[in-house]
Amino acid sequence: MNFRALRSAIPIFTLLFAVVAPACGEEGMWTFDNPPLKELADKYNFRPTQEWLDHLRLSSVRLNDGGSGSFVSPNGLLLTNHHVARDELQKNSTPEHDYVRDGFYAATPDQEMKTPDLEVNVLVGMQDVTARVQGAAKGARDDTGALEARDAEIAAIERESKDKTGLRSDVVTLYNGGEYWLYQYKAYTDVRLVFAPEEQAAFFGGDPDNFTYPRYDFDIALYRVYDNGKPLDTENYLKWSAKGAAPGELVFVSGHPGSTSRQGTVAELLLERDVIEPQFIEYLERRVDAEQAFQKQTPENAELVETNVFRLQNSLKAYLGREEALTDKVVLAKKEAEEKDLRDKVAADPELEKEYGDAWDEVAHAVDLARPEMPKRILRRTDSQLFSFALQIVQYVVEVKKPDGERLPQYHEAGLDSLRYQLLSPAPIHPSVEKLYMTTALTLAKEKLGASDEYLQAILQGGDIDKTVDALVDGTRLGDPAFRKSLLDGGEAAVAASSDPMIVAARRVDPVWRASYIFYRDHISSVFAAADEKLGKARFAVYGKNAYPDATFTLRLSFGTVKGYPYNGTTAPPFTTFYGLYDRAASFSDKAPWNLSPKEEAARDELDLATPMDFVSSCDVTGGNSGSPVVNRDGELVGLVFDGDIESLAGNFVYDGTRNRAVAVHSAGIIEGLRKIYGVGALADELEGKP
Amino acid sequence: MNFRALRSAIPIFTLLFAVVAPACGEEGMWTFDNPPLKELADKYNFRPTQEWLDHLRLSSVRLNDGGSGSFVSPNGLLLTNHHVARDELQKNSTPEHDYVRDGFYAATPDQEMKTPDLEVNVLVGMQDVTARVQGAAKGARDDTGALEARDAEIAAIERESKDKTGLRSDVVTLYNGGEYWLYQYKAYTDVRLVFAPEEQAAFFGGDPDNFTYPRYDFDIALYRVYDNGKPLDTENYLKWSAKGAAPGELVFVSGHPGSTSRQGTVAELLLERDVIEPQFIEYLERRVDAEQAFQKQTPENAELVETNVFRLQNSLKAYLGREEALTDKVVLAKKEAEEKDLRDKVAADPELEKEYGDAWDEVAHAVDLARPEMPKRILRRTDSQLFSFALQIVQYVVEVKKPDGERLPQYHEAGLDSLRYQLLSPAPIHPSVEKLYMTTALTLAKEKLGASDEYLQAILQGGDIDKTVDALVDGTRLGDPAFRKSLLDGGEAAVAASSDPMIVAARRVDPVWRASYIFYRDHISSVFAAADEKLGKARFAVYGKNAYPDATFTLRLSFGTVKGYPYNGTTAPPFTTFYGLYDRAASFSDKAPWNLSPKEEAARDELDLATPMDFVSSCDVTGGNSGSPVVNRDGELVGLVFDGDIESLAGNFVYDGTRNRAVAVHSAGIIEGLRKIYGVGALADELEGKP
Repeated sequence: MNFRALRSAIPIFTLLFAVVAPACGEEGMWTFDNPPLKELADKYNFRPTQEWLDHLRLSSVRLNDGGSGSFVSPNGLLLTNHHVARDELQKNSTPEHDYVRDGFYAATPDQEMKTPDLEVNVLVGMQDVTARVQGAAKGARDDTGALEARDAEIAAIERESKDKTGLRSDVVTLYNGGEYWLYQYKAYTDVRLVFAPEEQAAFFGGDPDNFTYPRYDFDIALYRVYDNGKPLDTENYLKWSAKGAAPGELVFVSGHPGSTSRQGTVAELLLERDVIEPQFIEYLERRVDAEQAFQKQTPENAELVETNVFRLQNSLKAYLGREEALTDKVVLAKKEAEEKDLRDKVAADPELEKEYGDAWDEVAHAVDLARPEMPKRILRRTDSQLFSFALQIVQYVVEVKKPDGERLPQYHEAGLDSLRYQLLSPAPIHPSVEKLYMTTALTLAKEKLGASDEYLQAILQGGDIDKTVDALVDGTRLGDPAFRKSLLDGGEAAVAASSDPMIVAARRVDPVWRASYIFYRDHISSVFAAADEKLGKARFAVYGKNAYPDATFTLRLSFGTVKGYPYNGTTAPPFTTFYGLYDRAASFSDKAPWNLSPKEEAARDELDLATPMDFVSSCDVTGGNSGSPVVNRDGELVGLVFDGDIESLAGNFVYDGTRNRAVAVHSAGIIEGLRKIYGVGALADELEGKP
Repeated sequence: MNFRALRSAIPIFTLLFAVVAPACGEEGMWTFDNPPLKELADKYNFRPTQEWLDHLRLSSVRLNDGGSGSFVSPNGLLLTNHHVARDELQKNSTPEHDYVRDGFYAATPDQEMKTPDLEVNVLVGMQDVTARVQGAAKGARDDTGALEARDAEIAAIERESKDKTGLRSDVVTLYNGGEYWLYQYKAYTDVRLVFAPEEQAAFFGGDPDNFTYPRYDFDIALYRVYDNGKPLDTENYLKWSAKGAAPGELVFVSGHPGSTSRQGTVAELLLERDVIEPQFIEYLERRVDAEQAFQKQTPENAELVETNVFRLQNSLKAYLGREEALTDKVVLAKKEAEEKDLRDKVAADPELEKEYGDAWDEVAHAVDLARPEMPKRILRRTDSQLFSFALQIVQYVVEVKKPDGERLPQYHEAGLDSLRYQLLSPAPIHPSVEKLYMTTALTLAKEKLGASDEYLQAILQGGDIDKTVDALVDGTRLGDPAFRKSLLDGGEAAVAASSDPMIVAARRVDPVWRASYIFYRDHISSVFAAADEKLGKARFAVYGKNAYPDATFTLRLSFGTVKGYPYNGTTAPPFTTFYGLYDRAASFSDKAPWNLSPKEEAARDELDLATPMDFVSSCDVTGGNSGSPVVNRDGELVGLVFDGDIESLAGNFVYDGTRNRAVAVHSAGIIEGLRKIYGVGALADELEGKP
């Protein structure tokens, strides 16, 4: 699915969540403090112990580039997807070595390859801080005051935790304000690449087969996490199941779904359908077109933006699927019925009606205000890494001088370590790519918002887009991490004195950005937040906590069974085999994107072709779950999530257990491939726990 | 698709045809007198000669059990589908030999196995008799008189032709009365079975995979046609293409599509959607349930009705697909737009308006009359072979004494040879099956039509269904072909004197049947026929003869290219390979209906697994096309049609070139399978023309 890319392509609006209906079937992305124990016991006669849950949680990791993973050996071996590792593979590539295309294997520890800016988080602590956060907002003058009070309290909680434990500490909003939790993460930044297959093996079928099943992808990558310069010594890793997932088996996914809008009110969904999705689809199409044209110019260009085109196409397919879901009358009717049920039950109880009855109208009002703002929020962008550095540096030096509670949320004390790690990444930046992205973004913005738009004015000052972009990218020194460090260290004075053209432009943009942010926060976000909190509480009051919150890129547990589903007039099988890989390649005459990788081609006669390769389960997943482990009742790893089927795209709004499927690489297929396609038996031995 | 079965399950209503819109894309089931020469020249730069067309026509055959086929060797070898030959395989089976399940191979000529009642027709002559048929109806008193006059003229034309040439002679209504053609067939009845694979290989994937693609079916059977006791010596056979169909290649299908309703008026389509499809679906579901329950009783039962369950499920899936098509707003909107276009153009021309302008209202009126009649027409049935013999014998002896032009159409002189061949078939009849079918049909009819229905009264005389059926089936001697012959030979007197209970019941049913037939003919069929003729002529007047007629189980030429199509969020490949067979079997853990046949299982390591097995083309086909040859520009056989994809089910009403596909076995796959799975190299040599 390339779940990862999806999330990273939608940095702007993660606002449209509300609260959750009681789950049914195998639906749900459950927090580890509230796993669906009753349903597991009733339906599967399975009663996981707290130890089972803790072990799975502590073996699961979040990657800061938007994916999930898990520890799979006592020596810090970390399993995720090739497409999650793609960025890091590209950053390590050189003109001599294209690790994305050709893959990578470190036969010895000293060959393991450091990633420039990867951060791995393990959720080691969770505390309910709802009372403290909600309490802080009591008696606030209005919604904006409440929002500010909650933000300040959240910053304080995060800082206290960070100071006390040294752990990365994030307060997470769940049930859209119904609950707040402090999540404490152990963070690792010394992460080294051990193995990746060729991209063609990982992404066989390319964009056409993306988000579909049956699939034949070997979408795996292995890192090793180091601690104090040595491989991490840990008991929190998943034992390998050689047999792997079997049809009909109960399985679990432990990972980090990025975002869902399952509990958006109908008014919010219509905003998505009518404004956000079409605008975003147009934006993505524009970028894909521009970047593919760029790729055609030279082979070097082709490689430079390949990862990005991959991500954009992935997002585009996901958005088209979402748009289709929202134009499906059945989907909308289901959402309307859910909303009506809750609203009727609230209306039937005078107490509840008094507390929460006006929430829907408040949301609808905020949606009306948001509607004209959305084009600006989506299109005011440069897509330039250098400009993003510039704006963050300009804001950073100002924000860190303020009391923590008064800062913009992304500059809270507790998050500064991770932020600085990103800002000082040594990963290379390519001027030609920067220009391409920036020109494309500004051109579309100018078309849609008009040249007089304040944001565009601040960047272009009435000038020509091409010339301005050339001057900015060619003139800036921000490509050098040392220069960025000097500005951060020099603080407000250094930034104010800088004549770096990108910094100068960012100084002009900053007030426009802040005004827009504050307007949106005070008039829209705060209303959503207040109404969402009401809806969350109303839902608790009516249905109890028999529910899971919308996804927030925090650790969740899904469960389901390994099973096929109705498709194409017949039935999709529970798993695929290596036979199917060779069938699909041959049936397209080995033409891209259905060509075999050289190693797959060579290994044809070595493999036991009937070995399961990929499989599906009814576990409820979405973007961000890429790289999540699939485990069985014994907590053994039976698979590795890498995608959802085409029907899962509607899962952003509705889970349909008959057709929504998580697609994973099968653990038996991973071993067969490592041993016989890639000849890396030592690595397979380490996974299988063999000496 | 099992296109064959579809047709045989809908014997009742082939009325709802009108005339054809100008074809576009690769649409069309063209008559051989009017092939799409301009389009082939313009689009493919292909100009078939008359010789090319004649050779293909004379190499194509129609099988009297509803399928198509072709001659593939100079010694009368005839290629069709296993599922077309299934009936004959079953009729030849014994308690010792289950040829349906296990397949068959005649290693020597004397082992070739005679089929009991198969008739093969080759279209050797075609003459336009429109003027004569339409002329006969001129000055008729009313629509019924016109219908009778046309029927009488048709009977005369057929008889004259039969007398003069000895050929089977059928007058075919095309463009729904816009044209009438005399089709003359050379008929062969000495047809012997040479080869069939195991059913599991032919029908891998069973009912779930039926009407879908990608597929992995080896759905072939080979007969040899004998003439005067010797293998037919013919030059009219298709040369084999060893390479077979290649992606992107222009190909043709020459076969016998059974029926389509592409040009039904919207009123007729609504009748199908609202009345016919639901009623027929319920009927089919009832039969499937009853027969599957019967199968569970004993292994012998399971085998006895297996072919029929196969057919019923096939029809059911087809009807469900049709129903879905008719509830698709896009499909209906397209039909409405087509109708509006023609109607507007007719209205714009006073001459045309005067001649044809009232046709739509006339159809709508006939539809209103037909609506309440439909349940009777669908449900008044026994599904008993013995009862069918009885009623036909009772009618036969009366009808043949009348002048040819006054007989019921199915007793016209020209068709009597074929009819007697069927009535005297030595194929075994199983009383337990007869009882099952009859009880099921009568029970449903009683439920829906009420016990007082005249037809039911005539059979049951107020008695209990089970007891009556037992008495009829146990008491009749009609299972014996010699007894049937004695009644036919004894004529009216013998039939009138017979106390055989089935004959006695048929004598009671006959007048009810006739009254219903006459009412329907006089008030509905005749109106449809008259209106259809107007619509056909209007269409010719407006669009010219740039069109093909709806399917009529007569020989047609389709064309298209070998190509995949959008499916399941990605692309279906142009062909599949043997790799895919083993993938799909393994991915369902070899569970039925995805288990391999024993010979396929054993041949796994012998095969070149990358050999194409099945493929798709955009050729326009429907039920009845099963067994049709697919040929290339050189007229060589590159494949064997056996099905359509799930999207082709809407093809009964609309052809959608982006997704409608014919599914065929690939000629290279046939050779690979014959040689390596079945070890019948001599047969492969004969196909390939090797000494």
